[in-house]
Amino acid sequence: QRAVNLAEIEALGRARLDQNALDYYASGANDGHTLRANREDFSRLQLRPRMLVDVSGVDTRTSVLGLPLDFPVGIAPSAFHGLAHPDAELATARAAAGMGSVMTLSTFSNTPIDGVGQAAAGRLWFQLYLLADRELSREIIAQAEACGARALVFTVDAPYLGRRETNERRRFALPPHLSAPNVASRETLAGVETDTGSQLTNYFQNLVDKTFTWDDLGWLRAQTHLPIVLKGILTAEDAELAVQHGCHVWVSNHGGRQLDTAISSIAALPEIADAVAGRVELYLDGGVTRGTDVLKALALGARAVFLGRPALWGLAAGGEAGVRRVLELLRDEVRLALALSGRQNLAGVGRDLLRR
Amino acid sequence: QRAVNLAEIEALGRARLDQNALDYYASGANDGHTLRANREDFSRLQLRPRMLVDVSGVDTRTSVLGLPLDFPVGIAPSAFHGLAHPDAELATARAAAGMGSVMTLSTFSNTPIDGVGQAAAGRLWFQLYLLADRELSREIIAQAEACGARALVFTVDAPYLGRRETNERRRFALPPHLSAPNVASRETLAGVETDTGSQLTNYFQNLVDKTFTWDDLGWLRAQTHLPIVLKGILTAEDAELAVQHGCHVWVSNHGGRQLDTAISSIAALPEIADAVAGRVELYLDGGVTRGTDVLKALALGARAVFLGRPALWGLAAGGEAGVRRVLELLRDEVRLALALSGRQNLAGVGRDLLRR
Amino acid sequence: QRAVNLAEIEALGRARLDQNALDYYASGANDGHTLRANREDFSRLQLRPRMLVDVSGVDTRTSVLGLPLDFPVGIAPSAFHGLAHPDAELATARAAAGMGSVMTLSTFSNTPIDGVGQAAAGRLWFQLYLLADRELSREIIAQAEACGARALVFTVDAPYLGRRETNERRRFALPPHLSAPNVASRETLAGVETDTGSQLTNYFQNLVDKTFTWDDLGWLRAQTHLPIVLKGILTAEDAELAVQHGCHVWVSNHGGRQLDTAISSIAALPEIADAVAGRVELYLDGGVTRGTDVLKALALGARAVFLGRPALWGLAAGGEAGVRRVLELLRDEVRLALALSGRQNLAGVGRDLLRR
Amino acid sequence: QRAVNLAEIEALGRARLDQNALDYYASGANDGHTLRANREDFSRLQLRPRMLVDVSGVDTRTSVLGLPLDFPVGIAPSAFHGLAHPDAELATARAAAGMGSVMTLSTFSNTPIDGVGQAAAGRLWFQLYLLADRELSREIIAQAEACGARALVFTVDAPYLGRRETNERRRFALPPHLSAPNVASRETLAGVETDTGSQLTNYFQNLVDKTFTWDDLGWLRAQTHLPIVLKGILTAEDAELAVQHGCHVWVSNHGGRQLDTAISSIAALPEIADAVAGRVELYLDGGVTRGTDVLKALALGARAVFLGRPALWGLAAGGEAGVRRVLELLRDEVRLALALSGRQNLAGVGRDLLRR
Ligand SMILES: Cc1cc2nc3c(=O)[nH]c(=O)nc-3n(C[C@H](O)[C@H](O)[C@H](O)COP(=O)(O)O)c2cc1C
Ligand SMILES: Cc1cc2nc3c(=O)[nH]c(=O)nc-3n(C[C@H](O)[C@H](O)[C@H](O)COP(=O)(O)O)c2cc1C
Ligand SMILES: Cc1cc2nc3c(=O)[nH]c(=O)nc-3n(C[C@H](O)[C@H](O)[C@H](O)COP(=O)(O)O)c2cc1C
Ligand SMILES: Cc1cc2nc3c(=O)[nH]c(=O)nc-3n(C[C@H](O)[C@H](O)[C@H](O)COP(=O)(O)O)c2cc1C
Repeated sequence: QRAVNLAEIEALGRARLDQNALDYYASGANDGHTLRANREDFSRLQLRPRMLVDVSGVDTRTSVLGLPLDFPVGIAPSAFHGLAHPDAELATARAAAGMGSVMTLSTFSNTPIDGVGQAAAGRLWFQLYLLADRELSREIIAQAEACGARALVFTVDAPYLGRRETNERRRFALPPHLSAPNVASRETLAGVETDTGSQLTNYFQNLVDKTFTWDDLGWLRAQTHLPIVLKGILTAEDAELAVQHGCHVWVSNHGGRQLDTAISSIAALPEIADAVAGRVELYLDGGVTRGTDVLKALALGARAVFLGRPALWGLAAGGEAGVRRVLELLRDEVRLALALSGRQNLAGVGRDLLRR
Repeated sequence: QRAVNLAEIEALGRARLDQNALDYYASGANDGHTLRANREDFSRLQLRPRMLVDVSGVDTRTSVLGLPLDFPVGIAPSAFHGLAHPDAELATARAAAGMGSVMTLSTFSNTPIDGVGQAAAGRLWFQLYLLADRELSREIIAQAEACGARALVFTVDAPYLGRRETNERRRFALPPHLSAPNVASRETLAGVETDTGSQLTNYFQNLVDKTFTWDDLGWLRAQTHLPIVLKGILTAEDAELAVQHGCHVWVSNHGGRQLDTAISSIAALPEIADAVAGRVELYLDGGVTRGTDVLKALALGARAVFLGRPALWGLAAGGEAGVRRVLELLRDEVRLALALSGRQNLAGVGRDLLRR
Repeated sequence: QRAVNLAEIEALGRARLDQNALDYYASGANDGHTLRANREDFSRLQLRPRMLVDVSGVDTRTSVLGLPLDFPVGIAPSAFHGLAHPDAELATARAAAGMGSVMTLSTFSNTPIDGVGQAAAGRLWFQLYLLADRELSREIIAQAEACGARALVFTVDAPYLGRRETNERRRFALPPHLSAPNVASRETLAGVETDTGSQLTNYFQNLVDKTFTWDDLGWLRAQTHLPIVLKGILTAEDAELAVQHGCHVWVSNHGGRQLDTAISSIAALPEIADAVAGRVELYLDGGVTRGTDVLKALALGARAVFLGRPALWGLAAGGEAGVRRVLELLRDEVRLALALSGRQNLAGVGRDLLRR
Repeated sequence: QRAVNLAEIEALGRARLDQNALDYYASGANDGHTLRANREDFSRLQLRPRMLVDVSGVDTRTSVLGLPLDFPVGIAPSAFHGLAHPDAELATARAAAGMGSVMTLSTFSNTPIDGVGQAAAGRLWFQLYLLADRELSREIIAQAEACGARALVFTVDAPYLGRRETNERRRFALPPHLSAPNVASRETLAGVETDTGSQLTNYFQNLVDKTFTWDDLGWLRAQTHLPIVLKGILTAEDAELAVQHGCHVWVSNHGGRQLDTAISSIAALPEIADAVAGRVELYLDGGVTRGTDVLKALALGARAVFLGRPALWGLAAGGEAGVRRVLELLRDEVRLALALSGRQNLAGVGRDLLRR
């Protein structure tokens, strides 16, 4: 029996995971206010569909940084796909590639970059956590570029790990068979582990840079020819700074996993879109589970959206096929929503699609 | 024991239906946001009743396109009345006729137009799904006109079928003893059926036109002398276009069955009424279950409202008598609400009836 | 054990009533939207208390139409106190009198006016339902005046009875040992009873005038020297008319029992207070169960508030002592709320007590 | 296993308390509207975090009335710590001192001031209920000053005790082994006790001054060299008066225990901050349980916040160590929230941190 929507895939995926992995994937920071707001603020937005448009050939294509996408949805970076499925990031990359999407590989992947680069067949972005060890960061960036990543997604909202309390309470840890090959050896990781709380909190505390500022972007710019996307922007002020520093903007609150009660990403989008004013590309993630969510984000100024947890649920539910099913369902929902909104293509999606 | 309100009839009706039929009648698109908003947005509106008016002879009469109605409520088109009762559309038509209402017959009726035309005794409108086969569409229209339909209700919000997920999951299908005689033979239908999802989705995908635009209204205009009503308008922009093309406007989101998170019909009404400004007739459906809902829609500019599911619950609960009871209850509620609002007739119902 | 608030008395009272009486007292019209809004709109209003005021001698006294009240709370008219307690309206009147409050006796009392007049010891208002039989109405008014009523409260929101569906479903009826002596003989009542629905609906349908308009107020004015209070006003327009006709204004939606989804009484109050602008006295009922509710109504312009159901719950819970306890609790709550708001008396209660 | 947040400590603490103590600590006035609003209004505020700030050395320090605090959180005064733990106020004081916080000792403490003064090691404020017996009040103040209190927190919102209905119903009483040494002897207390309701209500009724006004502040000013903080201010008007009388302002509704439906403290803060305009120090309590709550209060103008119940839950859960854990958790949450908001220190926290 095939899942009819992403909620069904989530249920299937959750059922396959052990407590440690489920806690890690599902958790939000603290009380989960932002986690819920990400979804609720999408649901609250109402659509104004137009009628009597020829929608026989609805076209959902777009491009991100020159890479053509079959529909405006990519995979957000998430750590540790190996918790969901033995094929880990390889499965996700293959699904993204096969569906004409794009995968953003996390610095904290369980699979080395080069393998994923091949599986992604050119449809790869690389997400960077800047490590305190700048030399190592430089190597990671070079490797990502060498392995075919087409953008560097620099995550700026996580100098420390947000407090996901279930993970602290039940002491989240990478199982012994998994590692984080881009970041550190198993030994290095073991060296910073403690006997309380989430081990990931310890990794972040010890390995991730907390000093990086806008001025340091010059250094980053010098390390790579790739376009740089700043992931985790939630204000017009920072969006303006991003533009001034030649970076693209990815609106995100890290899926409600960092600062709880931070504004939802869809609520933050309008002021950011106004600030950016088309000067750089604009993306969004957080709470996207429906084709109509995608259109709402586009109506408010995003060029494409990215999926965090939904891809993980798909991966847990069925490996590559599961992720593919997630993407298929969403592509079909986007197409149908576009048709029922009376828009022939994404260029037709503007603020007038939304009730004021 | 007689039902005291439409909710009781709904409960009775639901209890009589098998899973396939119940799923079909009850479902909304996707998460059901618009389905719920249709009702909730009515409930949220608050009335400002006036006192010390002579309400001994409250008058609920109106007319739609010249047809006098005993009260401002008609039956919206819905497919497949045969799922509810063996008398199918004939029962519904008789109830509407007997109550001084009007029935809108769906293109996807289980009963041929001519029989329904007789049962409706002049109180018939015909709802058109434009088929990809223009010749067949032309024949349907001609037949509707010949059978006494007094308006052509052209449904514009369904170039594709909305995704009612329970129907996809449990594979909604017409039972073998029912057909859709206006649209296609049983063989033609069988030809487009697949082994996944709702068969109705397949019918729509294969049989319904997706290319029709405002410019094509000239063609439709040329096929019939009947007034044309565009059903499924949700924006002021489209209402303006409808007026320019000489069409009447039926505000609807198809009972929340097409584009989920589309604006509720009652919330869409004000801007549409402003745009139309009395130049054509204006109707509404979606979520009407109370006499006060009827008055609210009229206060915001509708001339009459139409019932979708409530008529089906009545039909399932008791055939013609069940539909009649639905109409009686609503007529009595309208009359009482009018009296308790201190209005003697429908002309007295304006925006001042509603709290701003 | 003594009840600590009105909710506890309600629980006690409900437990003492049979289904017929409980249905009658508790019911609201249709879906109960207005019934709930009456309470919720009070709860939503927030207070802005002032500090460092000498509140050692807080004074809750006021007067209504010249009658001094120990605190600004009276008893609203309600039919059939005999359903709650054998002492019926006599108990209620004694409690009101003993507490320095005022009782409004319903036309549909189970006890004749004269007895209640004595029990009320001057603290009596009479509520009039204008009967189709004007002669009888005239007699009732004369009798009320003769028995010491100090105001005529003319209920204008009930030309027909609102539809309380539980009463219709379970066929509310006066038990044989009770009658409505002011209105009609048991025989007359029996004459209009039917075998479906609530008998009270039938009484209203057949006995109550539906034609009375503002112009007829001259007639009413001519029948009595008492001040006239129009009970059931919900709009500024009607309040203005009331003032022009020399009547006082009682904001009410009949406890949510007439027109469902009508505006809550506390929400209607501000525009009415603005319209009245102090030219006549202004009262309110509907949803008052807390001392802070009383202050909120006063802050928005009411001179006093009235209790419907709470008095009935008290009566059911303990006859005169029960009603007295309701009044005592509310008096103490008003006094404490006044002190904790930093107001020494009711004159100090203005709109600045409420958050905008 | 260590608690990961204050909610867990609350659960632990509640489980340790008997019914009498639990009722007393947990209760709010009447229906608990303000109690809930205190929390909900915090949760509703949304944060606008900034990125790419060097947050390696986040600094949470501030000072209150010249006393340096390690983070902007103190302990609000609450009566009867002996109900929670045998070490009572001594434990609380030691925890506050050890954590670089400040404890506000209640007039109704179970421990005499001098012992607490020593335990607090200079980190002590004293909360004053002005007693009807001015001479006694003067002695209390003198004693507080002598024992090292650095501010006099004069509670202005409790001339009478708010009505906490569970305490009335179950007759809250101090157990025999506890007394209120600052206020009265056990005999004096016994003298005012009655056999209904909460004994604390009786103590307040009989012992606390109800006449004190702004004009009397001169008298208070003359009794002490300590700075005076008015605790319980909820309006801009009173804040202005406080400034004019040379007092600091503590925004509070007494944890929702006095006037129910009073505005939440965080909702009252903005107008008060505008009125105060930095001329005196401004604090807040009520509903603070998260580091983000602290930042929100600071963003809206508070200099520091205070914890009522959370400290009591900590005390019940584990004595001094329990209170310490509460403070540690909150300090860590403030620090992390600051870092994830992209602010290096408290000076960086302004209204732009909040979504309008
Ligand atoms: C389990 C998990 C791991 C994540 N790991 C990373 C990561 O390594 N790097 C990163 O930038 N974002 C990470 N994120 C955040 C996602 O990129 C994305 O912002 C977020 O999941 C979007 O919200 P959604 O899950 O509602 O789609 C992670 C999210 C989850 C749920
Ligand atoms: C079971 C069902 C079948 C429907 N079939 C049709 C149809 O054939 N043609 C059409 O224009 N609308 C159709 N509709 C939509 C209705 O005409 C109407 O817009 C909607 O039901 C109104 O909402 P309500 O059900 O809340 O009253 C259908 C609705 C339902 C519930
Ligand atoms: C059981 C019951 C009977 C009532 N009977 C009358 C009546 O005879 N005349 C009248 O003017 N209002 C009547 N009312 C309305 C009350 O006067 C009053 O408007 C309403 O109860 C106030 O709302 P509350 O019940 O929330 O306090 C009745 C209300 C109830 C609950
Ligand atoms: C059990 C308890 C006792 C209290 N006793 C006092 C007191 O003696 N003096 C005082 O000024 N405030 C007192 N308060 C109010 C607190 O100082 C503070 O305003 C309130 O608890 C803050 O809200 P929170 O509990 O949500 O943190 C008390 C509060 C509680 C819960």
